[in-house]
Amino acid sequence: MRNILFVFAFLSLAIHLFAEDGSRLWLRYEPLPENIATHYSGKILYISSVNSETGKIIEKEFKEAFQAMTGKNLHSAKMDRGKNSICFEINKKLPEKYTIQTKPVKNGNYISIESADDKGLLYGMFHLLRLMQTQEDISNLNIRETPSYNRRILNHWDNIDGSIERGYAGASLWDWNDLPGTISPRYTEYARANASIGINGSVLNNVNANPKFISKEYLLKAAEIAKIFRPWGIQVYLSVNFSSPAELGGLPTSDPLDPAVRQWWKDKAKEIYSILPDFGGFLVKANSEGLPGPQDFGRTHADGANMLAEALEPYNGIVMWRAFVYNATSPDRAKQAYEEFMPLDGQFHKNVIIQVKNGPVDFQPREPFTPLFGAMQKTPLMVEFQITQEYLGFSKQLAYLAPLYKECLQSDTYAKGKGSTVAKCTDGSIFPQAITAIAGVANTGNDTNWTGHHFAQSNWYCFGRLAWNPDLTSEQIANEWIKMTFTNEPAFVEPVRQMMLDSREAVVNYMMPLGLAHLFAWEHHYGPQPWLAIPGARPDWMPSYYHKADAEGLGFNRTTTGSNAVSQYFPPLRDRYNSIETCPENLLLWFHHVPWNYRMQDGNTLWDELCYKYQAGVTSTRQFQNIWDKTASYIDKKRFDEVQYKLKVQTRDAIKWKDACLLYFQTFSRQAIPDAVERPVYDLEELK
Amino acid sequence: MRNILFVFAFLSLAIHLFAEDGSRLWLRYEPLPENIATHYSGKILYISSVNSETGKIIEKEFKEAFQAMTGKNLHSAKMDRGKNSICFEINKKLPEKYTIQTKPVKNGNYISIESADDKGLLYGMFHLLRLMQTQEDISNLNIRETPSYNRRILNHWDNIDGSIERGYAGASLWDWNDLPGTISPRYTEYARANASIGINGSVLNNVNANPKFISKEYLLKAAEIAKIFRPWGIQVYLSVNFSSPAELGGLPTSDPLDPAVRQWWKDKAKEIYSILPDFGGFLVKANSEGLPGPQDFGRTHADGANMLAEALEPYNGIVMWRAFVYNATSPDRAKQAYEEFMPLDGQFHKNVIIQVKNGPVDFQPREPFTPLFGAMQKTPLMVEFQITQEYLGFSKQLAYLAPLYKECLQSDTYAKGKGSTVAKCTDGSIFPQAITAIAGVANTGNDTNWTGHHFAQSNWYCFGRLAWNPDLTSEQIANEWIKMTFTNEPAFVEPVRQMMLDSREAVVNYMMPLGLAHLFAWEHHYGPQPWLAIPGARPDWMPSYYHKADAEGLGFNRTTTGSNAVSQYFPPLRDRYNSIETCPENLLLWFHHVPWNYRMQDGNTLWDELCYKYQAGVTSTRQFQNIWDKTASYIDKKRFDEVQYKLKVQTRDAIKWKDACLLYFQTFSRQAIPDAVERPVYDLEELK
Repeated sequence: MRNILFVFAFLSLAIHLFAEDGSRLWLRYEPLPENIATHYSGKILYISSVNSETGKIIEKEFKEAFQAMTGKNLHSAKMDRGKNSICFEINKKLPEKYTIQTKPVKNGNYISIESADDKGLLYGMFHLLRLMQTQEDISNLNIRETPSYNRRILNHWDNIDGSIERGYAGASLWDWNDLPGTISPRYTEYARANASIGINGSVLNNVNANPKFISKEYLLKAAEIAKIFRPWGIQVYLSVNFSSPAELGGLPTSDPLDPAVRQWWKDKAKEIYSILPDFGGFLVKANSEGLPGPQDFGRTHADGANMLAEALEPYNGIVMWRAFVYNATSPDRAKQAYEEFMPLDGQFHKNVIIQVKNGPVDFQPREPFTPLFGAMQKTPLMVEFQITQEYLGFSKQLAYLAPLYKECLQSDTYAKGKGSTVAKCTDGSIFPQAITAIAGVANTGNDTNWTGHHFAQSNWYCFGRLAWNPDLTSEQIANEWIKMTFTNEPAFVEPVRQMMLDSREAVVNYMMPLGLAHLFAWEHHYGPQPWLAIPGARPDWMPSYYHKADAEGLGFNRTTTGSNAVSQYFPPLRDRYNSIETCPENLLLWFHHVPWNYRMQDGNTLWDELCYKYQAGVTSTRQFQNIWDKTASYIDKKRFDEVQYKLKVQTRDAIKWKDACLLYFQTFSRQAIPDAVERPVYDLEELK
Repeated sequence: MRNILFVFAFLSLAIHLFAEDGSRLWLRYEPLPENIATHYSGKILYISSVNSETGKIIEKEFKEAFQAMTGKNLHSAKMDRGKNSICFEINKKLPEKYTIQTKPVKNGNYISIESADDKGLLYGMFHLLRLMQTQEDISNLNIRETPSYNRRILNHWDNIDGSIERGYAGASLWDWNDLPGTISPRYTEYARANASIGINGSVLNNVNANPKFISKEYLLKAAEIAKIFRPWGIQVYLSVNFSSPAELGGLPTSDPLDPAVRQWWKDKAKEIYSILPDFGGFLVKANSEGLPGPQDFGRTHADGANMLAEALEPYNGIVMWRAFVYNATSPDRAKQAYEEFMPLDGQFHKNVIIQVKNGPVDFQPREPFTPLFGAMQKTPLMVEFQITQEYLGFSKQLAYLAPLYKECLQSDTYAKGKGSTVAKCTDGSIFPQAITAIAGVANTGNDTNWTGHHFAQSNWYCFGRLAWNPDLTSEQIANEWIKMTFTNEPAFVEPVRQMMLDSREAVVNYMMPLGLAHLFAWEHHYGPQPWLAIPGARPDWMPSYYHKADAEGLGFNRTTTGSNAVSQYFPPLRDRYNSIETCPENLLLWFHHVPWNYRMQDGNTLWDELCYKYQAGVTSTRQFQNIWDKTASYIDKKRFDEVQYKLKVQTRDAIKWKDACLLYFQTFSRQAIPDAVERPVYDLEELK
């Protein structure tokens, strides 16, 4: 034990010798101010749990964090319950649920963390550490926490060659070549970070899945990762390729109704669980964007999902079947998931859950929620968010996504009357469902700071926090994250929090305001290409499919006079969306083709309003630079410089977005850019 | 005559059919409003001058202009002097001098233009046309005009291969290959434009002169140009290479004291005048930037100039000898012209004039005047301005240069007490001099619009106008030019005039405020490279030679504690420049090495003020875009679009200038950019 502690002490020293590089995330455990540290006695009381792996983690994490923050060594003091001593107890409660309570004793108080299982204690401990890190008053705690979703999962779009689809923070964290023989220390650090925010599952590989991932060779590799994750409460899942029976197993078909195929999957499940006894289950992208699926054999999504579900059922595994489907010829891509899945409602096996992207198109800066939420009432649904910023400026741009996630989760579907939010429709409180889950496409990679942009860490963080409790505010979460990641100094926290809270709307404004979508450049999805037209390419991969700009106006008519996508929503929402008068202006062009001279609520014409929005986006990015530059004295130079550089790029690129979109749309509106809007500095032809 | 008029009518039609392209310059003769045109009777009275070539030009120009503006045909009405009829008279007055007077007759008034020579009548006619074009009241004229400088000369830095050194408007106007056989119609158009603003001389070739230009072959070509120029009152001059006797004549030396060399030049002069009887003279760049000169043979500038002057003297030719000399090893380049030329004052032949750049370094956006002005009292001096924007953003950026020219011409040298302005020191009013002259390095090329940027025409225009009369205000000239070039519409004229008047200071602000100089990129002189350091290159071609940025501060100490360049100025100016307290802030860093925290007059530190100046420059360019965008309805689309595009580029490049300079200087100041200044969007390393 002494040796292990010595190693850690050395590591701690190393962290302080080398500059802040973001690698420690929000788990920095900076020394507390003297006046706060003085309240901690350094006494700790273990009643239980020290014999499990998780128990050891709890002990080590807490001891080291406590020492780092207070400068005091923790010592066990059995039965010596004193002021601010900590007590862990395992009682029979729901798994993961925990309480943190201040309990009185004769000579003061102690803090008791209680849970039904190790995971609950782990989360409770991180909760307490968070309170300490953020310098909250812990003198009288009475906290009861239960997660909203049972499965809180990161989806890694990581490939076998170490690349990451839509990854902007370096290569994959998983060294498939070196596994299972060599174990990266980052596997533990990753698991620890997830545990600290309540994430309890990882889909290790890309939904565009290589069948090899469920070969024995790769299962043995995954098993090593799972072994490390296990005490941190994290289950491993895998994406599977629907053609695996043929491609991996050598069968003549992968038809889900073929008995040999069904047997192959049962055998495969057995093999998986022999190697990964607590394997979580499969994530499946089928019949989507060229991936194989049951429709290739004339079967339904339900046929495919149920076959897999039956194979996993004996081991309590689940199937997460993605609803992200659309074909190139449909008149409105936004309607297709609903059209394909609604007829199947009630046909899925009980251990299947449908994984539905938050919006009906594809992780745009702003979309309405996917109308399947609330509508598909006999099948468990889970929201899939994107944490990686495929459409929000990669890891080059600052966009704090808690407001985006909350906007979806709090959207009222009206499925069972007012208050039927997407969150309530998926967390089991409206529709009883055996499985509740939520997924986020990870933004992690092997960059030192994990996420490329230091502020992209906040999206990993807020996804975890909201997966645990969607009622937390974006502000609360930003507050916690800033304090833990940077500093408790109010002169830093307050302006930076405001910057974060404004950042997603800034991106919307300079990229795609008023409900515009998918004006992105071909394939890479970074810069603007509203003019994009590639002969022979899928129309639904062309921006003009989405913006429908013409001499009359702008936007996609999805009302009853258009594609009628509004009909997929419940009343009164469908009517609200259907009327140009009542449609929320931030989704106006999503649902309506609006004349250039249409008067917005503030009296501006659509064209002028569009210009003002783009300008507002640019102005915001300049404000972010201004805010950030004032923070230099509060934080380390390395992170200050790195963020400063990214904000430069963001402002520059925001100007490009504004110019490209306004100049392009101006070719249709044929109207002047209003005086208060900065003239373009780029030329349309040159941007093209 | 009918045929010729028919041709012109066709051309006029063509001009109207095709869009405005800037080719007509300020000589557009747009129809006057009906209420103004009605005052013109259409009667014209020629008393004299119709028999000369110039007389024919006057008749044709005026008839066509009058017809175009009033819709009325002019008809001769001998002795029928009526309301607003025009009378040309030649009386014995000074050459070029003219009067325009309203004279009464029994049934109204007529306008009489009188001069001692054809040129005066020509200028008087263009003056009258300008009054008509700008819709001035001409009912009671009493105008007496005499040019301030006798020789008002454009210097063309045009090479034999058609390229133009520092030319940004296409290739040379002179088709040396096709001459003398083929004559471009542009030679006449060029001469006409110059005549309209009083320019009476053109140096056809680059000061970095190819000896071939004075070969018989090229003299015959130049003679064709001169023939066209002559009736427009324009003399041809040539730049000569000092080594011509050796390089062209095959002599063993070009030593100016060698009798054979002197004879060679005399013979050459004779040959020149046999071909070009009204040849103006030589422009010479000698012992400067690698060019040969008398110092190569141990002789002085005076020895060299006087040899040439003697050769030209029999034909009334002059020598314009440039004072632009500096060597790589001197501690202060700004002092060298003075140091080399002052000892030679009084030693030059009477038909030599020293051509001195307005500032002591090299056509920077702002420099103090060259201290030779006022100091060299026994030798005629002429100012050389640069019309082409080598250091003011090429023809990409809008910079109206009348304020720059006037700033120099009106600078008080104190040579003979208060009021000894550079203008008065060079126009003969303080120091009697046989020759008075002024030169501008032309910005013309074979671009359709002549000058690349439509607004660069205003610099050609204002140079001519100020060469005629330096007391005209920048505002007056801008007013004339805008009205003639674009429109008389006040809603256009007023904001555009303000934009022009602000434009040069904007360039100073975003390029080199507070007296900074020469932060330009290597060789091309467009973008910023304050960091430039090329191993082995001349130090006086490196920006650090000029800005002297270091940890303490910024700027070149030219005070008595530094290079003592201030001593080249007369008191009290030298004392004013010498003291950091009294030195004008717009030249502060030219004369002083100023601490970063030095308090400027407005209370800002130097560093903050520098930042605000760069920001002000950027903000101005945005305002220019805004102003221009509102003008679309007043002018033709072609010119509107072309200017709009250039203003985009200007704003974008202004931001690059600001970012590059502030980020670079910040590496020395180590201070934050003030809040009110936009954060950089570029990265220093990337800009490098």
